[in-house]
Amino acid sequence: MIEGDPAADFPAETVGRDWLHKDLLGIQGLKAGEIAHFLEVADSYVDFGRQSIKSSDLLAGKTVMNLFFENSTRTRASFEIAAARLGADVVNMDVATSSVKKGESLLDTAYTLEAMRPDFIVVRHSQAGAPLLLARKVGSSILNAGDGQHEHPTQALLDALTLARHFGRLNGLTVAICGDVAHSRVARSNLHLLTTMGAHVRFVGPPSLAPKAFEALGADVFHDMAAGISGANAIMMLRVQKERMGRNLIPSDREFFDFFGLTENRLKLAAQNALVLHPGPMNRGVEIASEMADLEGVAKIREQVEMGVAVRMAAFELMNSARSNPDVMKVIP
Amino acid sequence: MIEGDPAADFPAETVGRDWLHKDLLGIQGLKAGEIAHFLEVADSYVDFGRQSIKSSDLLAGKTVMNLFFENSTRTRASFEIAAARLGADVVNMDVATSSVKKGESLLDTAYTLEAMRPDFIVVRHSQAGAPLLLARKVGSSILNAGDGQHEHPTQALLDALTLARHFGRLNGLTVAICGDVAHSRVARSNLHLLTTMGAHVRFVGPPSLAPKAFEALGADVFHDMAAGISGANAIMMLRVQKERMGRNLIPSDREFFDFFGLTENRLKLAAQNALVLHPGPMNRGVEIASEMADLEGVAKIREQVEMGVAVRMAAFELMNSARSNPDVMKVIP
Amino acid sequence: MIEGDPAADFPAETVGRDWLHKDLLGIQGLKAGEIAHFLEVADSYVDFGRQSIKSSDLLAGKTVMNLFFENSTRTRASFEIAAARLGADVVNMDVATSSVKKGESLLDTAYTLEAMRPDFIVVRHSQAGAPLLLARKVGSSILNAGDGQHEHPTQALLDALTLARHFGRLNGLTVAICGDVAHSRVARSNLHLLTTMGAHVRFVGPPSLAPKAFEALGADVFHDMAAGISGANAIMMLRVQKERMGRNLIPSDREFFDFFGLTENRLKLAAQNALVLHPGPMNRGVEIASEMADLEGVAKIREQVEMGVAVRMAAFELMNSARSNPDVMKVIP
Repeated sequence: MIEGDPAADFPAETVGRDWLHKDLLGIQGLKAGEIAHFLEVADSYVDFGRQSIKSSDLLAGKTVMNLFFENSTRTRASFEIAAARLGADVVNMDVATSSVKKGESLLDTAYTLEAMRPDFIVVRHSQAGAPLLLARKVGSSILNAGDGQHEHPTQALLDALTLARHFGRLNGLTVAICGDVAHSRVARSNLHLLTTMGAHVRFVGPPSLAPKAFEALGADVFHDMAAGISGANAIMMLRVQKERMGRNLIPSDREFFDFFGLTENRLKLAAQNALVLHPGPMNRGVEIASEMADLEGVAKIREQVEMGVAVRMAAFELMNSARSNPDVMKVIP
Repeated sequence: MIEGDPAADFPAETVGRDWLHKDLLGIQGLKAGEIAHFLEVADSYVDFGRQSIKSSDLLAGKTVMNLFFENSTRTRASFEIAAARLGADVVNMDVATSSVKKGESLLDTAYTLEAMRPDFIVVRHSQAGAPLLLARKVGSSILNAGDGQHEHPTQALLDALTLARHFGRLNGLTVAICGDVAHSRVARSNLHLLTTMGAHVRFVGPPSLAPKAFEALGADVFHDMAAGISGANAIMMLRVQKERMGRNLIPSDREFFDFFGLTENRLKLAAQNALVLHPGPMNRGVEIASEMADLEGVAKIREQVEMGVAVRMAAFELMNSARSNPDVMKVIP
Repeated sequence: MIEGDPAADFPAETVGRDWLHKDLLGIQGLKAGEIAHFLEVADSYVDFGRQSIKSSDLLAGKTVMNLFFENSTRTRASFEIAAARLGADVVNMDVATSSVKKGESLLDTAYTLEAMRPDFIVVRHSQAGAPLLLARKVGSSILNAGDGQHEHPTQALLDALTLARHFGRLNGLTVAICGDVAHSRVARSNLHLLTTMGAHVRFVGPPSLAPKAFEALGADVFHDMAAGISGANAIMMLRVQKERMGRNLIPSDREFFDFFGLTENRLKLAAQNALVLHPGPMNRGVEIASEMADLEGVAKIREQVEMGVAVRMAAFELMNSARSNPDVMKVIP
């Protein structure tokens, strides 16, 4: 995928084609070589998704459960399409209307679902650590589709794949992550991935949303948008959560846009050929000017979504390979 | 399908087996030969649906997204079953609970979904023109499953298939469409289809629901049920939308039934062997007497549903053939 | 499945591999030989579900509709997984948000759905008898997934499979069904199955929930938990329905637990090697002490869920075989 020699672009560690983790809980803890390998597998699925016939039997006879405690049509659909194209049976659990509402604990739900022998459970949950809890207790592979303000690993991987396909490398890039960093699992997963791969990460936002304390995590923190964007190779705008408005965190749409919205003038401060990313759904006119969101060759927002399917197919392939490895699976209780 | 010589029954235009439209947005604009061809393909799927094994791999490796902004279990299920029996992967997008609610525009939703590379997007939307907007912007084939008060093309096609299989022709038939014509996309799509195929269309209802102005569209308008039904070969009862009751449009269930309900006595005024159709779900005792809805050999309401699956399989087959035609696809931006 | 000679364990009637019922509406009316046969077929699917590749094409080209008028994520998922692993197309009907809400009758809904030619309709409904009504009117096979306070046959079959695999027999076992027996379709289906197979059934609960009148059905009724459990081979705890609390039926969580909760001390009164079952979802600390729910080798709650998928696969296989038998199908109107 990466043009030139991957060994030159990525830090030296390597892994074989085999994957040694039953679960995908987060980026933190993955080695650079593992991330590079993951991205290469994902890259191979990009062309697959562009074929007229998008069908594989890699997961034939496997069962994937989508267990979304928080609604997310697009992420759920992305996992579902990835699994279906690999030939898996996919079951969507409408958890919002389920027995969970009847007061059943997460763990009892998990044990119940596991007894139906799914091979993979894709989990989104408002509590950080929920996927880890499940992964420790059940033999199914857990794929974290976002847990609280903790991690959203497939989002970081799809962002990285988008960047790596454009720049041919991640090492040495400067990526500005802007907006509500404090509450963002996307920011956190991206920070882990990008710093592991040798990129520089900046967090840009008002002190309420991008506290200086985050420098301890390895990012540079900027409270001024112009300074934060200046010279960056990629600008990743985060979604402003409307529910945080007026709670002393964000004053108003208009004021937020004035100070931290991505505008044409601000984008000019970035490095040449800089990219604009957004995990979606966008608030046009709040965190990003509408024209910037549609800028041909610069805004990669739709491409990110496409990469998302490829990354999730790679995740299923790699976890599936781990599941056939007795050394990986023997640690399960 | 049509007994006797189709050329004698349908106006002369013909098309080959190939279909030249990426999308199915409405009936308006389709030529008689295209409609006749569509119905023949659909007819071939009726027997398919009656087999013990209902399985084809025509759409293997293709992805169908059901994007229903308005709930409709039966129409959604009909498209889903049609797609699944053709071997496609089907993803249902629960749009009512999705990011659309978070304020994302229809177009941003469409771009996002298209980036997952679906081959077909089935759309129902409360706004007339929404499917057209999508069709212009995305490369996926758009199938309109009902847009506002505009069109519902597969409904008109399934009505026509029901009529054509019974009468062996559409040309020369008189079809009375009764009730809330003014707000009905079903009435509008049927009007286009039936007049294109040489049938005579009557709109029957109170002036509030069947205004005289509709005569400009090519229908005869009747405000008296007996006159409107008289001599008709088919009576298509529309669903009374309860939410229009008491808003000066419809006085009450009882009064509506007295003036415009389909009763045994009124049905006697129709032509011999006349059929009764209803797009469902029915309000028994409001627009139609319960006995009329169940009249053996006359009421074709269940058969319409069966034809619906066949019509949707034909739609997928034809759009799929169009998608392999570079001349059709090159017009996409 | 059953260790030793099944003929010795089950009453003598037998049936061939063929199944002679189009529908699975309840346990009442099934003969002992039929139940034994069903359990043997289900048992063969337990190993199937434990394979790495869980895929069959027995139902390829068949359509299964899940029609749940009451929400139940776990039961719906169990049927869906069973059908998908057998290769069927599965369509979930979101009935809560469908045209049923628009006032359509159950029968009109059924006729509409049947016209789409599903082979199987899985129904859960709050009204006892709803599945029977459908079965009489439509040609699709109806699988009752719970109807009011009437029957829940696959639950009783999965409970029986769990017991039979452990004890090697059902004949002669004593099973205590405890808690809200009066409102429980699970209790009712289990009563029919267990007594038919020669087991002894006890109903245990306060007079409001386990009235003496139930002795007429063939169960022994106990209002004292210790007496009811004493010497039992299996204790089946029912879920306390919170909505019945404070309506003179159940005083409070705490009081219910004090009098009828399954505790360690109470469990000691049961027979040696007694099993604990619960249909889920559990209220830990209300009807069952948390430690009892997790007791290794004793609590079979997760295994019940696993058996549920096997039982539903067997149900599809048997109904499917019945559907190819003209003698079975000719009784359909």
